[in-house]
This record gives sequence, structure tokens and C-alpha cells, in this order.
Amino acid sequence: MKTMKFEEWNGFNHGTWEREINVRDFIQKNYEPYDGDDKFLAGPTQATKDLWEQVMDLSKKEREAGGVLDMDTKIISTITSHGPGYLNKEKETIVGFQTDKPFKRALQPNGGIRMAMKACSENGYEVDPDICKFYTVHRKTHNQGVFDAYTPEMRACRSSHIITGLPDAYGRGRIIGDYRRVALYGVDKLIEDKQNQKDSTRITMYSDVIREREELSEQIRALGELIELGKIYGFDISKPAKNVQEAIQWTYFAYLAAVKEQNGAAMSLGRTSTFLDIYAQRDLKNGTFTEEQIQEFVDHFIMKLRLVKFARTPEYNELFSGDPTWVTESIGGIGVDGRHMVTKMSFRYLHTLENLGTAPEPNLTILWSVKLPDNFKRFCAKTSIESSSIQYENDDLMRVTHGDDYAIACCVSSMRIGKEMQFFGARANLAKCLLYAINGGVDEISMKQIGPKYRPITSEYLDYKEVMDKFKDMMKWLASVYVNALNIIHYMHDKYCYERIQMALHDKKVTRWFATGIAGLSVVADSLSAIKYAKVRPIRNEKGIAVDYEIEGDFPKYGNDDDRVDEIASSIVHIFMNYIKGNHTYRGGIPTTSILTITSNVVYGQNTGSTPDGRKGGEAFAPGANPMHTRDKNGAVASLKSVSKLPFKDAQDGISNTFSIIPDSLGKDNKIYVGDIDVDIELSETDSFNREY
Amino acid sequence: MKTMKFEEWNGFNHGTWEREINVRDFIQKNYEPYDGDDKFLAGPTQATKDLWEQVMDLSKKEREAGGVLDMDTKIISTITSHGPGYLNKEKETIVGFQTDKPFKRALQPNGGIRMAMKACSENGYEVDPDICKFYTVHRKTHNQGVFDAYTPEMRACRSSHIITGLPDAYGRGRIIGDYRRVALYGVDKLIEDKQNQKDSTRITMYSDVIREREELSEQIRALGELIELGKIYGFDISKPAKNVQEAIQWTYFAYLAAVKEQNGAAMSLGRTSTFLDIYAQRDLKNGTFTEEQIQEFVDHFIMKLRLVKFARTPEYNELFSGDPTWVTESIGGIGVDGRHMVTKMSFRYLHTLENLGTAPEPNLTILWSVKLPDNFKRFCAKTSIESSSIQYENDDLMRVTHGDDYAIACCVSSMRIGKEMQFFGARANLAKCLLYAINGGVDEISMKQIGPKYRPITSEYLDYKEVMDKFKDMMKWLASVYVNALNIIHYMHDKYCYERIQMALHDKKVTRWFATGIAGLSVVADSLSAIKYAKVRPIRNEKGIAVDYEIEGDFPKYGNDDDRVDEIASSIVHIFMNYIKGNHTYRGGIPTTSILTITSNVVYGQNTGSTPDGRKGGEAFAPGANPMHTRDKNGAVASLKSVSKLPFKDAQDGISNTFSIIPDSLGKDNKIYVGDIDVDIELSETDSFNREY
Repeated sequence: MKTMKFEEWNGFNHGTWEREINVRDFIQKNYEPYDGDDKFLAGPTQATKDLWEQVMDLSKKEREAGGVLDMDTKIISTITSHGPGYLNKEKETIVGFQTDKPFKRALQPNGGIRMAMKACSENGYEVDPDICKFYTVHRKTHNQGVFDAYTPEMRACRSSHIITGLPDAYGRGRIIGDYRRVALYGVDKLIEDKQNQKDSTRITMYSDVIREREELSEQIRALGELIELGKIYGFDISKPAKNVQEAIQWTYFAYLAAVKEQNGAAMSLGRTSTFLDIYAQRDLKNGTFTEEQIQEFVDHFIMKLRLVKFARTPEYNELFSGDPTWVTESIGGIGVDGRHMVTKMSFRYLHTLENLGTAPEPNLTILWSVKLPDNFKRFCAKTSIESSSIQYENDDLMRVTHGDDYAIACCVSSMRIGKEMQFFGARANLAKCLLYAINGGVDEISMKQIGPKYRPITSEYLDYKEVMDKFKDMMKWLASVYVNALNIIHYMHDKYCYERIQMALHDKKVTRWFATGIAGLSVVADSLSAIKYAKVRPIRNEKGIAVDYEIEGDFPKYGNDDDRVDEIASSIVHIFMNYIKGNHTYRGGIPTTSILTITSNVVYGQNTGSTPDGRKGGEAFAPGANPMHTRDKNGAVASLKSVSKLPFKDAQDGISNTFSIIPDSLGKDNKIYVGDIDVDIELSETDSFNREY
Repeated sequence: MKTMKFEEWNGFNHGTWEREINVRDFIQKNYEPYDGDDKFLAGPTQATKDLWEQVMDLSKKEREAGGVLDMDTKIISTITSHGPGYLNKEKETIVGFQTDKPFKRALQPNGGIRMAMKACSENGYEVDPDICKFYTVHRKTHNQGVFDAYTPEMRACRSSHIITGLPDAYGRGRIIGDYRRVALYGVDKLIEDKQNQKDSTRITMYSDVIREREELSEQIRALGELIELGKIYGFDISKPAKNVQEAIQWTYFAYLAAVKEQNGAAMSLGRTSTFLDIYAQRDLKNGTFTEEQIQEFVDHFIMKLRLVKFARTPEYNELFSGDPTWVTESIGGIGVDGRHMVTKMSFRYLHTLENLGTAPEPNLTILWSVKLPDNFKRFCAKTSIESSSIQYENDDLMRVTHGDDYAIACCVSSMRIGKEMQFFGARANLAKCLLYAINGGVDEISMKQIGPKYRPITSEYLDYKEVMDKFKDMMKWLASVYVNALNIIHYMHDKYCYERIQMALHDKKVTRWFATGIAGLSVVADSLSAIKYAKVRPIRNEKGIAVDYEIEGDFPKYGNDDDRVDEIASSIVHIFMNYIKGNHTYRGGIPTTSILTITSNVVYGQNTGSTPDGRKGGEAFAPGANPMHTRDKNGAVASLKSVSKLPFKDAQDGISNTFSIIPDSLGKDNKIYVGDIDVDIELSETDSFNREY
């Protein structure tokens, strides 16, 4: 590309970013690390207070209405489907809603028409019958495509909950567009770049080349619609943003286009604060805006992000204990040149938790490093204590593989912005897999043969070696069914529910992470430990299926920094991951695993029978990589150390440890110490929105 | 599959066909060759006369209305989209129309919404705006998919008519479902068979396996809809047909489902007569029906096939000089065991041309062999002379590679029924390609650079060796652009306009012919002959582009049995075919070529400048493999011998020679001699429907 020149860039330092689409280079050449404290921050303006009061009033009405205030039943959501929507046009400095008014949920059937119809009907609305018919007869959805290709075995695994939470009836999410590109370059330049990409595909029309060319055309079309979206609200976003207000607005329009198009399982924002701070610093220097004005833009931006809403079914909300959108924004971190990336904007984002009050969305995530400036660490701790709404993740660990322009999608999935995306893959229930190993593939709840008809264990007491041997076989089978089901899901998602605008904000060459997940790890570790170090006797029903277990003697339990069991946990992750890797993955996806559940572990436990660790059928699993509740007797540090032994290289998609701390235990001066622990820690409590991850 | 048993099969001879879906085996085990004459044939019943009068009346009204009597603008055509339609329910013995009444053309937008809208608007109708919007915004069509993936070079080749008639805006057609299977097995059995196929796909979910599983699901869904279609007309076609009337009706329902789903460039019927004769013979033997009744069923069946109509644009009709549907039915031929396959039903089909009067559809095609029984040969000749409506193709040639259960799709494309299908590929204009070779890729009409910027020929006289050398390079380039464009077309057709019911009536393993075509062959042969044997001087315009040619001296012309030029023609076919074969083809398609145009050669000529053979710019090409008009001076046999030298192995999709004979020249006793000529010959004249192929 020729060196680009825009008057909107006056005052910025030059760099590669002027010759190619390269937001990271722009940031690195221009951002100013901020080591100061939070005293510069401005409180909410009257407009902010008024608008937020309006939001709180609407939220109250929404709760009173049973959770949904209004739903679209006739207009299928696209980037340009709706006219402008406002809370109060005069007072809003950042504008844009998914539909033509706040709190009205859009109709997004491409993931699955039945899901869309159910989301409406369960809330007392009815989708226009013509649309239902059209999406049933003439326009296939992701969901229907997936079920057309599923094998009976995949369906059985799904029904029996040994594979859970597959994104086969809704948008997969976990893809982050580089929304900042729109602010920095304007849409016209991005279209030009995409056109160049299309002009330089391979020339032999293999099917993957054809797919790529079609996708690029769709991306270009979506970018054209993005310009239209700007126009609907009276802005020309074909050109770069010229100040921080426009930069926020342009970035938000890009994100808004994404949530108008996709009802994904997680629609994260990326890493925008340091980028936007460059504009803020220039505007402050030039006297364009005051700190109070800039904070108002940020408050209004965050307010909009809080109001991202999707039409979802009660089952979905039950699984996730709420109505999450995972508008995750990654803040802070350290650059690969050693400079920390905290700016005033990092403070301003967190400050919205004070200006507007606490909220679970956007999911403000600190990319934590021991090298973060003390003032920022203190401010994080203070805001955590006051709001209970900050997530922390380990930048020192992730930076090694991901550099300094990655962000978190959903809870823990890291990806380089605009260069990597994830094929979201939910979870395999390894606790149930262990029971299948014991019972020769028969489900301990339905009593149906779900897994392969391997020989069950028939001995009176479980033998560790025999169990491990059979467990490995069963994991190998499970990994194969699981990865192949995901292959179908991602093939069909690309076919019927492609993320046009999000992928338009990616490079041409995209690395695709093929995400899988593990549920029930601590149950498996403790069960195997019990079998190895104590004596476990299965209690079998009349059909010979083990339905409960008696344990004689004690055994080491995961979460006490005891290598005997911690090593079992690590090795299971390693073995399962290797089985995952042994399978073909769609579109060259690179297999990863996460050990991550934050609330869905409750549902997984409900669908899993008694386990050899003494856990009774139906009892919740521990979340993510957590030890089972009450079994970590050696204190918090030992518990964390057990988790920290899990091999990150085998679970690069993230390891979560839900760690609840009563504010008082952190000290009376509202200070918190966060040390150098190799796991992602979330400080979470039941928050005011009654939603956990 | 377990051996099937149905009481509907009583009286049939046993065979493999009872253990697997195998119509050919059923035919071979059960058909009775008929050596007799046409004296057994019955005339039209009163009901037939009444119905046909109704048809003629509606045809008149249709012509008076400008070519279209009625169009659907609100109901998108599917297998089950319409209620029953009749001419006169009391009198019809075979029922079913594409919409809810005769002569009403269905709305079929999956191939391309713009085409569907244009077909309506050009005839004074308007597609429901909601449907237009839906198919523009939410439901992509084949046409849009293709243009999203086309390269600028492909578009340029299309605009300049060096590649012509690509099925990129409408259904590709040229796929023949084995419609007979429905009659023999009933739909339930076919669904069971398809389910077994789905249960036995490969188990690793590569993208092609996923595609296959989804397609099988769509096929099963379409078969379910086919049962519904039967119910709409009051029949249960889930079970086998129990007599000839049902066998015809079941077969027709299967075909009707195909034309309700697809507006393909050619929707051929297959090879049904010998199959149906087995039922007729059993019914005659059992006294179930009389000859008169059976002829009435056939007459009503053929009447229905004559009324297959599609919504098409004036351009489409102009290209094909009419409104063809190519409901080709292949009749006769010889079995691989040496028995001829002529039955009484072969006579009955041809007899409809007398009972109903002549018509271009269905395209009744005799699979001609010297071994056909004399009585049948005589009857064909007689019917040809009286109706001018029979096509002849060389069974002795095609049987070698295709066996005895193939049929012709469109005009000349042969395929084993239910085992092979064709990716239809229109034509490359080799005459224009030769001009590009001379002009270094610059189009002689638009003066734009379309082909690669090879060095043009700048000498005063054209040198044969230099021209051939440059022509080869240009053909190699053209073959690559052409095949890659076709790869895109067939990828997108499968994606957005898949032939569900037609492919449901195929085996699981299908051989796909990747059809290409050549236009302008005789122009090329004569041009190269002129360059070689006479002296050709290009006349160049001010830009140095050759726009006309002066020939000094005489040269041998294709069509006179002169090896000097006939060998040039053969070698061009061979060379171009080898370049075609050098390219990757979608879905493992096996490249073939046809030398086939029957009317579109006129349009191709219009878009091609003057050529070195003396043909002036805009003048029509000869059709198919024909010599140029008036240049075959040595009589009909010499002309045919030139054509017969073309290598069939390089053009297995068919070679057409349009050969007009004035009836009187065939002798006064209405006898025709058709000898053993290695080409497909069509006896065609302007017929009463004013339509040629």
C-alpha cells in the first residue's frame, strides 16, 4: 500500500502503520505510559447522571417485565436494518443501539431459527410467521446445517452431556474484530485493503480459494454497510476519526455492527483503551476537549456497552446463570519493549465503575503483570474492592506467546487482535468420561450405551492401572467425537452464519485457534487419587452399572499443593490434549484447550452421576480448574499452587480459578496484594446484577 | 440391504434389483424386446383430444399474451409449495403441474434473484418486494455467490464473449435423476437407502465428508417432500407403483419434483420407456388395462412433459432461439447382452407425435444402432418425416463407454442414469481465442486487453507456425480461466442451489463429468487452413489491431472430407482438451468437451470480429461441429465424414452436427436411410413451435 496521508493524523508519530493496516504499530509509536495516580479523574457530568438514571429506570422496567422489555419480531437484524436509536439524543455524546431503541432485543435467526423463535416465545413474543417459514424452508441456518451433518454418536454424546455447551444452535462468538481500525483508518481505506487482499488470492480455484474470495467479498460488502450505519446516525466514518470523541464513536460503530450481525456466545471488544488514549492526549494537548468531556465520552461509551443485549432462551441463561454478553475489554499489560501500557484511559475505563456504578459488563479485564505501575495496581485494587467487577489475567504468561496486542475473548481466551480468531468449542465432561471408562461406555444416568462398547470394569475394587488404561481409551474416543463435532459446527457456522464484519476487521491471513475445553478436572483428579491411594468399591445396579462408590481410607486431594494428586491432574490435561491433537481440525485450526467453567459447572454436575472421589450424583463440579469445594484444606496459597501446576502449554486457551475473597479479608485499608501466580485469577462475588461468568 | 418384498412386484422376474436399488437390473431381467411393427398402436381417446384442445387453446392465449400467460410472484417454488393443479381433473389420467395451474410459471430464485425478477418484469409481472429483499439481503443465491468469487479476468472474459453461456445466473441443469426408482421402489425404500448411505460416510469430518452428510440429509428431506407431493394429488407414493398408470404417475411425480425445485438449463427425463413397458406388458397380460388405456396414460404423460415451463428472460430465450426445457427422453438402443431395447413403449412414446401432434418437447431421442429392429427403424423414419421432431444419437458409440442404461441430458450429453451427473460448462469461443492470439490478447471488438499481454503478430502475412504457436499459448490461458470459472460456478451451485431431489435419485457414489465446450471450431479450422495453404494478410486499425483479413488464393475447407484441414480441426480439439485437463477441477470432476451449439452459434458469431477464413465480423458461426455454411462443396457424405473424424475420446460430451434434409429428398415412400456414421446427427427443421436447439 502507498503511504497513507490524512489530516486527521496530524500530530501523530510516523511509523509502519502509515503504510499498512497496523494498529499495534500506531499504538507503540504514539502511546504515553502513565505512572501517576487517579487524582486527575473527573466525575460524571449531569448528562451522564441523567442518562444513567434513564438506564436504571429502564432496567427496573425490564426486570419487572420478567427480563425482557421489548423484542423485534419482524425485522431481521443486519448492520443497516434499523433507523437510529437513542436514550436522549441531546445528552448522548456516543450514540448507537442494536435496534431503533434501547432495551429492544434484535431478531438474529442465522444461528438458528428455532432458537430465535424460542427466545421470543419464552418471553411472550412471536416471530413473524413469514420469517419463520422463510428461515425454515428457504434460508438454512447454522443450527440446521449442523444437525444435518451430525452423526448419531454426536447427538448421543450431546444428549448425555458428555460433550456440553456446543455452539450448534447459536452464534459461536469469541471472535474479536479489530474495531480500532475503523477509527484510525476510516472504512474506505479498509475496503481498499480488502480489495487488494481479494486481488491477491491464489489463482487456482480450489474450494478453499473460492471460499476465501467469497468471504472477502462478504467482508467488503459488510464494510460498505458499516459506512451506512455511520450515516444512519449522521456520521461519515469512511474517513479516519479526527478526535477522541470520534475515535470512540467510530470504534463503537464497528463493534455495534458486529453485535447487530452476530448473537455470539461472547462478543468481546478487544483492547481499546491505550489506543484511544493517544487521541485523548492529543486533544488535551490541543485544548480540543477537557478531561471532564473525555471522561463523559468514555462513560457514555461504556454505558452503551452495558446495554448490549441479545434475545436468548431461558436454558441459555440458566447455563450461564444470567444473560452474559462478555463484552470483554483488556486493559493494561506490558509491551514487548518493556514499557507498561497503562495510560490515563486505562484509569478512565475503570473509573466508569464509580461514575456509573458497578456492572458485570463490559467485562473489564486487567492484563496483570508484576511490572504494572504501583499507582495503577492500587487503583485496580481499590476499584475491585468497591465494585467487585474486575477480572485479572496473567499478562506475564500470555505475553510470551501472544505479544502485546492481544486481548481476551469471553473469560480467558487470548488472541492477537485482528490476526487470530478462535473456533469456540465448549467442553468435554471428563468426569463423565471416567465413569464411561468404568462402565464400558454405558451412561450412568440414562443407562444407554453412548460410548464404544469397551469391556467395563467388573472387579470389586477399582484398580488404578486398569482404570487409567480404560480411561485413556475412553478419552481418545471422546476427543475424536468431540473434535469431529466441532469440525461440523465451524464448517456450518462459516457457511450459514459467517462473521462478515468481524472478519473484515482482521488481516487476510488469520490464525485460527481450535478451542476445546475440559470440565470436571478436579473431580477426575480426586477420583483417580482415591482409586490410587485409597480403596474404591463401585456399587453396581442390577444391570452391573456402577452408580455409586464407597471409599475406604483417605487420599490426597487436588488443591492442597500435594504433588501426588496435582500430577494426576496435570497428566490428564496433557493426555487429553494429545488425543485432541491427534484429530483433523477444520480449516487448519490449531488445537487448544481451556479449563474453564465459572457457573456452567453446576449444570454439568447435575448431569453426571456419582464419582469415585465421593462426590454424589448431581452435585456441582468445581468451577474451571478449581479444587472441589472444601477439599482444599491447606489454605488459599496451597490451593492456588495446585492450580498453578497445570501445564499452560497444554491449555493455552486459559485456565480459570474462581477465587472468592471477602473484602474485609483484604485488609481494612482497601489494599489488595496480587502476587506472581501463574494462573488467571478472578475476583468475583455475587454482584449487583446477580450474574457470574 | 435385506431382500425387499412387495406385492406390487408380483409377476416380475427376480434379480439383484430386489436386494439393492438397481433399476437397470430390473429392466434387463424383465423387459421384452419388441420386433413387430406399429400396427398395435392406439389412437387418441376423446379425453386426450379434449385435453389437448384445451392445451392448444391455452397455448394460443399464451402467445397472444406475449409468451407468458401467468407467473407466480409470491410463492417460492418448492416440491410442496403448491396445491394440486389440473387441466380437467375428470379427464386426466396422469396429473401434476409445477404450480397450481397449467401455464403458470413458478418463481425459482435460488439460481439468481435478479434473473427471477427480470424474468417477471420483462413479462409484466413483479416479484413480491419482500421476497426480493429477502433474497437480496438474507438468502444468497448461486448468482451472487459466483460473482463474489469471480476474478476480474473471468468477468472480462465473460463480457467479451470469449467464454459464453456460463450457467452463473441460473440453474446449471443437465442432471438426470433416476425418476424410475420412485415407481419401482416407492419413496420409503429410497429414504431407507439414503439413510444407510448417510450412516456409512467416512468418519473423520473433513469438509468433503461434512458436505456429503449435509447433502444426504437434504436428499432425505427432499424425498420426504416428494411423498407430500404425491399426497397433494391424492397418491401414496411411499410404496411402489402397482400398475403402468401408477408407474408413469410415480415417475412423473419424481420428475415434477425436480422441475419444481430447479429451473435448470436442461431438465432431461432419462430413459423411461423400456422400464415402463415392463409394467404395461404385465397389465396387458393380466387384463388390467387395454392398449388404448395405456396409450392414453402415455399421451397424458407426454402432454404434461410438453407443459413444463420456466420463467426466463428474453436474453435467455434469444440465446436459445426459443424457450427450451430439453426434457430429453432417450429411446431404444442396444443392451450390452446384444438384445435391442426397443419395446412397445418405445413406439407409444413416438406415437404421441401423431396422437397429440408434433412438438419439440419432450426431446424424443433415438439411441440409434445399426442393430435396431427394422420395424422400429421404419417407424422412426416415418415419424421423423411426419413430425420433424426426433433426435438421433449414436448408441453404438456411446454404449462402449456408457453401457446400456445411460441417457442424454440436454442435446448430446450422455450419462449413466443415477450413477453419473454433469457439471454443465457452456462454451469457450475458440474463434475469438485465435483472434486474441493474433492480437496479443486485445479484444478485436472492444479493443480492451482481455487476454494476457503476449506479443501480437506484427508481420504483413500470417505465418502458420507463428500463429499456431501463439494460438496454443492463448488456448492454454483460456482453458485455465474457463475451468477456474467453472470451478467457482459449480462450488456455488452446490452451495446455494443444490439439486436435492435429483441427487436423491442418484447412487451415493456419483461420477461427475466436468463439461466444457468449444464454439467456432469450423471457423478456426478454416482460418488455420487459409493461413497454411493460402496467404492471409491482416488489415490492422490505427492501434495495430487486426480487424479484418484478406485472403490470397484458395485453401481446403472443413466439410469436404479433406484431411489437410480436417486434421487441423481434430488437432485443435485434442490440444484444447489437453489444456482443459491440465487444470484442477471441482469435486474430482472428469473433464469432457462437447462441440455443440445448435442456435447459440449465431449469438457467438455476432460477438466475434472478422476471422482469417474470410468470415466477416458478426456473421454466425456454423452450429456445433458443422462445416461453415456453403463451404461443404463435396456433398452431404463428405461433409459428414469431415465431422466424423473429430476425436470422440476428446469430446465425449458429444459432437453435434445439425443436418437439415428436405423431406422430399428422403424419397417418396417416406423411407429414410440412416447409416453407420460416427457422429450424432439431428434431423431438425423449423418445427411448428418455432424452436430449434
